Amino acid sequence: MCIFCKIVEGEIPAYKVYEDDEVLAFLDITQGTKGHTLLIPKQHVDNLYEMNEAQAATLFAKVPHIARALKEAFNPIGLNLVNNNDQPLQTVFHAHLHLIPRYENDGMKLSTLNRMNDFEEDDYKAIQKAIVKHV
Amino acid sequence: MCIFCKIVEGEIPAYKVYEDDEVLAFLDITQGTKGHTLLIPKQHVDNLYEMNEAQAATLFAKVPHIARALKEAFNPIGLNLVNNNDQPLQTVFHAHLHLIPRYENDGMKLSTLNRMNDFEEDDYKAIQKAIVKHV
Repeated sequence: MCIFCKIVEGEIPAYKVYEDDEVLAFLDITQGTKGHTLLIPKQHVDNLYEMNEAQAATLFAKVPHIARALKEAFNPIGLNLVNNNDQPLQTVFHAHLHLIPRYENDGMKLSTLNRMNDFEEDDYKAIQKAIVKHV
Repeated sequence: MCIFCKIVEGEIPAYKVYEDDEVLAFLDITQGTKGHTLLIPKQHVDNLYEMNEAQAATLFAKVPHIARALKEAFNPIGLNLVNNNDQPLQTVFHAHLHLIPRYENDGMKLSTLNRMNDFEEDDYKAIQKAIVKHV
């Protein structure tokens, strides 16, 4: 049984903050920032790749509720939702969403701002075509 | 009308990769990595804080489908889902999810690995209590 399934089953403890029949939210034991929370489906699934629409809907439906609670609890300047699938960042292979409140000068190295601005029209079209073929 | 509403309405172009009645996916015009895709609800909503459960379920239900398409298209080593609410990272205030395929040495500065490991039992309990009060 994976470590998050053990938390769901109560075999190992966690700082739980929300629970219903389908999902569980608890503090990440290594807090990236104050209030860093994980939201997981109770039923084991490795990651997003393995989810169907209903599983994704059920899990993510609770994200706004938890996000608002974190905002009210800590008055952060913002909040990031992060989910990692496979390398380089997924360490526990039970799907989990990171909800990370953000604060001034919090030192969190989380940025999607380093972008490649040297793309030409043809580059975009080739990428688009590659995706559409599989979507 | 916001820039993403204009894309939904067809007033400005985008490299679309998926569309249905509720959501639209298109290439981020500044690609963080090859295949960097945005998934948005067609109906305007500022960010996660403003969403109800049904809106979140509808939007996120499509994430696995797009994620699998990106995996099949580019064979990345992994994929990050990122969503930014308010500061420091939200630049367009129409809710959008970043799907970012990851590659070896892609230079993407995206990490949740810098953690605070100096938390004591009392710290966790205080944080838990603060959240539970609002959840």
